[in-house]
Amino acid sequence: MKFTIQRTAFLHYLADVQRAISSKTTIEILTGIKLDLVEDSLTLTGSNSDISIETVISIADEDAALKVEQPGSIVLPARFFNEIVKKLPDDTMSIDINERFQAIITSGQAEFTINGLNPEDYPHLPELDSTGQVMIASDVLKQIISQTFIAVSTQESRPILTGIHFTIKDGSLTAVSTDSHRLSQRKVNLNVPENINYDIIIPGKSLNELSKMLDDSTDDIEIQISENQILFILNNTSFYSRLLEGKYPDTDRLIPKTSETVIEFNATELLHSIERASLMSHVGRNNVVKLSLNVAENKVVLSGNTPEVGNVEEDLSFKSLSGEDIEISFNPDYMKDALRSFGQTEVTIAFTMPLRPFTIVPTEDQENFIQLITPVRTF
Amino acid sequence: MKFTIQRTAFLHYLADVQRAISSKTTIEILTGIKLDLVEDSLTLTGSNSDISIETVISIADEDAALKVEQPGSIVLPARFFNEIVKKLPDDTMSIDINERFQAIITSGQAEFTINGLNPEDYPHLPELDSTGQVMIASDVLKQIISQTFIAVSTQESRPILTGIHFTIKDGSLTAVSTDSHRLSQRKVNLNVPENINYDIIIPGKSLNELSKMLDDSTDDIEIQISENQILFILNNTSFYSRLLEGKYPDTDRLIPKTSETVIEFNATELLHSIERASLMSHVGRNNVVKLSLNVAENKVVLSGNTPEVGNVEEDLSFKSLSGEDIEISFNPDYMKDALRSFGQTEVTIAFTMPLRPFTIVPTEDQENFIQLITPVRTF
Repeated sequence: MKFTIQRTAFLHYLADVQRAISSKTTIEILTGIKLDLVEDSLTLTGSNSDISIETVISIADEDAALKVEQPGSIVLPARFFNEIVKKLPDDTMSIDINERFQAIITSGQAEFTINGLNPEDYPHLPELDSTGQVMIASDVLKQIISQTFIAVSTQESRPILTGIHFTIKDGSLTAVSTDSHRLSQRKVNLNVPENINYDIIIPGKSLNELSKMLDDSTDDIEIQISENQILFILNNTSFYSRLLEGKYPDTDRLIPKTSETVIEFNATELLHSIERASLMSHVGRNNVVKLSLNVAENKVVLSGNTPEVGNVEEDLSFKSLSGEDIEISFNPDYMKDALRSFGQTEVTIAFTMPLRPFTIVPTEDQENFIQLITPVRTF
Repeated sequence: MKFTIQRTAFLHYLADVQRAISSKTTIEILTGIKLDLVEDSLTLTGSNSDISIETVISIADEDAALKVEQPGSIVLPARFFNEIVKKLPDDTMSIDINERFQAIITSGQAEFTINGLNPEDYPHLPELDSTGQVMIASDVLKQIISQTFIAVSTQESRPILTGIHFTIKDGSLTAVSTDSHRLSQRKVNLNVPENINYDIIIPGKSLNELSKMLDDSTDDIEIQISENQILFILNNTSFYSRLLEGKYPDTDRLIPKTSETVIEFNATELLHSIERASLMSHVGRNNVVKLSLNVAENKVVLSGNTPEVGNVEEDLSFKSLSGEDIEISFNPDYMKDALRSFGQTEVTIAFTMPLRPFTIVPTEDQENFIQLITPVRTF
């Protein structure tokens, strides 16, 4: 195996594959990156127990300026190799592999010789027996992930809740996550035949890694789903994730259908007030703030109190308020995550009773995005 | 005590004093910041066992727009207070203290009440019985610190080496540091009477903190020195540090007076080559690289070798080379620190023998700045 490549472009490809490679794994070959060189392209592969990423650098890519001298394969220590490529002196670099699986890396006056591993020992990527194909816009997928990842559980005690539940049905996609204290649900319409149905749970961490690879330059993404794997194809990169096994809880019944009090806020203004109040709750034992809505006086007060340290109180400004008076206490961090996911917009918050979950929806699009937070009992 | 102040300007002053305040101290009052309000100014004080910082905000400072309503004093929990000031909603803020040492902080619609401490319990700052005064340009002091701090010892086994040795004599200042593996020495001329003599050891950490406060807006700095304290006065801030007790080792005799081999490099180019070679040495057990100078062939090779991982070799470009052939092995991290302290310039490296310290000086100003590195025995 022997090739020459433009170093900066190569680094960019390396960074994508690096996401799947953990330096913590005990399986030595998985700390490596696999390089497969054929006549017209170089394929890079990285993998861990959850995800695998494969990216193809074509000789047609002018930025990479890949020149293939002799096809072949090798597995190189990923992190170390990446650091070397970063520090090489010249714009271009060459890699030559000898029969003892050593890579001789040259660039300018510098020559590195590093020990690699036999590529035949590298695990094979899953083969997907796909029954149908779904296309989704890159920015939409990125938004869905950011809006639902916040409510994914980080506790391994109920592994199923560390995933995001994706349902594709009747041409629409619903993504739901809940850590049992809060819930986030997002719906979008997909341009797929109505007979395409899926009900899968994708690990939240996998989607979060995928999300970091999506930027403005990413085209529409193709999704292929099999029994226990999902594949996202973006530009020239394939992103595989395992699926979680089991049945996701029925979240529909958690979302209240009626409400007693409704208030409308600017999401960003409310976020700043919550951030202030949470300064006080964070220093105390109970991370709780209290919202008091007085409809007759048209007054809403947010407060936090930690007797050893002090207290905070703030009159909130709001757009509209109607229904019954209510006092409700909740974890301000859940509210912060929820409000950030709406961005700069108006939100409607609907309460039923002090200890029942309340909902937050964008005022302009109440059907397709909902956040739910369970209050905290303070007495 | 009651005053109103412009929040952003106040934050800037708070940040300076915060440098002296550790949240780790077991003395509760030292986790606090002291506020002293008089008719025409507000003084902020922070302190730990090594340094104390005091800054004065005058009513004449238009950015701060300090309005004094009622003089008084208080000690507030520093980190928490700082976070609150950062998050307040309005451009201005007011603080009012009640008789129970509570501060009521208001800004816009937000009102915080936080518990403070009795200012009479706060320790007094050292009083300096100064025998003379030294002035130094802020950028010169910052450079001296950055050039010598690198060789300060981080080991508490020889506490004296955690300081930087400052000698003022015959109108010139010499700063020296050594961790016994390397040494850095910088000289500057000072505009002081020739009869002013000092020989003091300042904790390296104190100077490093001071250095962070020096920027382009800092005027010349006044230095006052007493038996066991040093005071730096910069603009409206006083920075106190304790001095280290004891006698600093005689470093003059460590610096070789003669050399057998002399080579001249561009500091930045050499730095990049060392960075590459150290990639290899960092993964091995011995963090060592080897420099081989062959005068007859006019060839200089830098190499690193870690048998389990691989090796690296690079032909170095240099400006001039003379004297005897030599092979020398050293810790590349010491060389990196040294080269960075020179910036973009030409340096001259002089060797005597493979196991004797070698020196690095700027080619253009060999008298006033010298770095010394002790090689490593590799056989």
